[in-house]
Amino acid sequence: MKQTHRITIQASAKDNRKHTSKIWQMEPVSLPALSRVALCGGTHGNEMSGVYLVRELQRQKLEKAGSATLTTVISNPRAVQVCKRYTDTDLNRCFTDAILSSPVTDATPYEVRRAQELNTLLGPKGNVGAMDLLCDLHNTTANMGLSLISYSVQDWVIMHIYRQIQRKITSAPVRFIVLDLPLADAYSQDSLGKHGFSIEVGPQPHGVVRADIFNIMKEAVDQTLDWVQCFNSGCAFEGGEVDNVYTFVKSVYYPRDPETNQIAAAIHPQLQDRDFCLLHPGDPMFLMFSGEILKYEGEEVLHPFFVNECAYYEKSIAFHLARKMTVTIPPLQVKRD
Amino acid sequence: MKQTHRITIQASAKDNRKHTSKIWQMEPVSLPALSRVALCGGTHGNEMSGVYLVRELQRQKLEKAGSATLTTVISNPRAVQVCKRYTDTDLNRCFTDAILSSPVTDATPYEVRRAQELNTLLGPKGNVGAMDLLCDLHNTTANMGLSLISYSVQDWVIMHIYRQIQRKITSAPVRFIVLDLPLADAYSQDSLGKHGFSIEVGPQPHGVVRADIFNIMKEAVDQTLDWVQCFNSGCAFEGGEVDNVYTFVKSVYYPRDPETNQIAAAIHPQLQDRDFCLLHPGDPMFLMFSGEILKYEGEEVLHPFFVNECAYYEKSIAFHLARKMTVTIPPLQVKRD
Repeated sequence: MKQTHRITIQASAKDNRKHTSKIWQMEPVSLPALSRVALCGGTHGNEMSGVYLVRELQRQKLEKAGSATLTTVISNPRAVQVCKRYTDTDLNRCFTDAILSSPVTDATPYEVRRAQELNTLLGPKGNVGAMDLLCDLHNTTANMGLSLISYSVQDWVIMHIYRQIQRKITSAPVRFIVLDLPLADAYSQDSLGKHGFSIEVGPQPHGVVRADIFNIMKEAVDQTLDWVQCFNSGCAFEGGEVDNVYTFVKSVYYPRDPETNQIAAAIHPQLQDRDFCLLHPGDPMFLMFSGEILKYEGEEVLHPFFVNECAYYEKSIAFHLARKMTVTIPPLQVKRD
Repeated sequence: MKQTHRITIQASAKDNRKHTSKIWQMEPVSLPALSRVALCGGTHGNEMSGVYLVRELQRQKLEKAGSATLTTVISNPRAVQVCKRYTDTDLNRCFTDAILSSPVTDATPYEVRRAQELNTLLGPKGNVGAMDLLCDLHNTTANMGLSLISYSVQDWVIMHIYRQIQRKITSAPVRFIVLDLPLADAYSQDSLGKHGFSIEVGPQPHGVVRADIFNIMKEAVDQTLDWVQCFNSGCAFEGGEVDNVYTFVKSVYYPRDPETNQIAAAIHPQLQDRDFCLLHPGDPMFLMFSGEILKYEGEEVLHPFFVNECAYYEKSIAFHLARKMTVTIPPLQVKRD
């Protein structure tokens, strides 16, 4: 199958102009039907929109999306039970090949054992028996609206789903975050599927469900299932550009008190709630508890995201920085037998 | 000492008009100087503004407020360490006379032991040796702005501090919540002081510190310490009316799924973030995860607060309801020896 593709990296560093390179028309792609779809919530036990949404689908006994079977899973029931992100270790960092194949002993953390169970149920990762599509539901305390997160901008199924969600959902900004890792090192649960992505919606405090955030997540899930049905039934999806694609560059850490080693600042009010804005050199970044302001001293203009995410305090991460891209995707339709 | 006082309960039930009863001029009151002040954070270990504010004051070694000594305390260091509300039981429900005087055994929860330690350090509750003023710092996920919470509208020190905070702080709405309980049953840490109140600021996710919320709390603490210095140095504070005083009426609980007993709804978007608005009979209250709307069926128009507070999920409390009052306070100044 011959393909050409083009990734345009926005020249945001100095002048925020786009490269104006020629866009090649990509040849149409045919891919197998998605006959087994999994929808997971509670991978982090205190991210409540996904927990309540999966429970509601289970209550409704929703087990089909058109011709596809739908499997719904509460990924970390122990963590959900105690309303914590995890009990022993972060489940959503346990899906690397190394951890999935590690021997189980009495000392093995609960989440490692659970990851291996989930790999049996929804994978095996990278194997022909894996779910065709895995969608994992998350919340963040950051003001990120609706983000899809995955490991490639060349998984055309996911990119087409992203474009449909972006076109149809107007209640929140919609963006795509790509983590550039090989499959073996992909650590999150969505990597178990042949195609997989996480849906991340915020801001919502962990341990809380907000109707507005729940509804945005539900719309994204409805659009995903709608796209799958349409794809499986033979719809042809046009190729073209998709924008608002962000690639992870680096993490920025909280400043710490040299004596106590404790976090010594909050995100500056001018950065708080401004996920995916442009952060320029010299922009305020932290407000120290002493009142002092710390500014961004990087050389490149980048886009902060996961700004003030609760779960990242334990690693002292204040936010991540990304570069913005536009991606061209090919026309897509289901491969006929 | 002859006093007259008047509490006007706003006739909000039907028409939201105020009673127009005559306001009597109250006679001036003299009270002893406040020579020992305590400021506590981390009573709930995941309410971060108070934790970081107390740590910052400790870093600055701030031990005086004018002539008053200032004691700063992290109330629940174990819970702060693990960033949870509490480890065994809610510390801020442990300051009743019954719990403070209960015998300690090996089975006694950590927080009960810690409450008894704090009673020794900051009390004893109701005793002449207690702190003259105790201010306890809290956060909520509810959109409550800045609220002072205490057990009486006739503690003139607290009411005058409230009025100063209300007059000086414009960055958030300022309100007073009164819990009508006798001192022996007063369960929160602020009841250890001769005068005591909690400062509650939100919305802020638990486990997160936001600079805007931190700054509002800091302003409230600064105003409190400023008022204490002014009072101790002989300033005369005028009497008059104070408004936006709310008295707890009852709690409203989440609807539950009859089969699973799990919470079956979120706060309705029209109520979310609208703490202290007027809730009328027929107003939407819950959005069921199934899509159905539940309406408020009470007969009285009341004011919801602590709407969607994270910590109340474990008790299934969706919000509290209050009645609004205006309180008349007397002129106040320090009693000369």
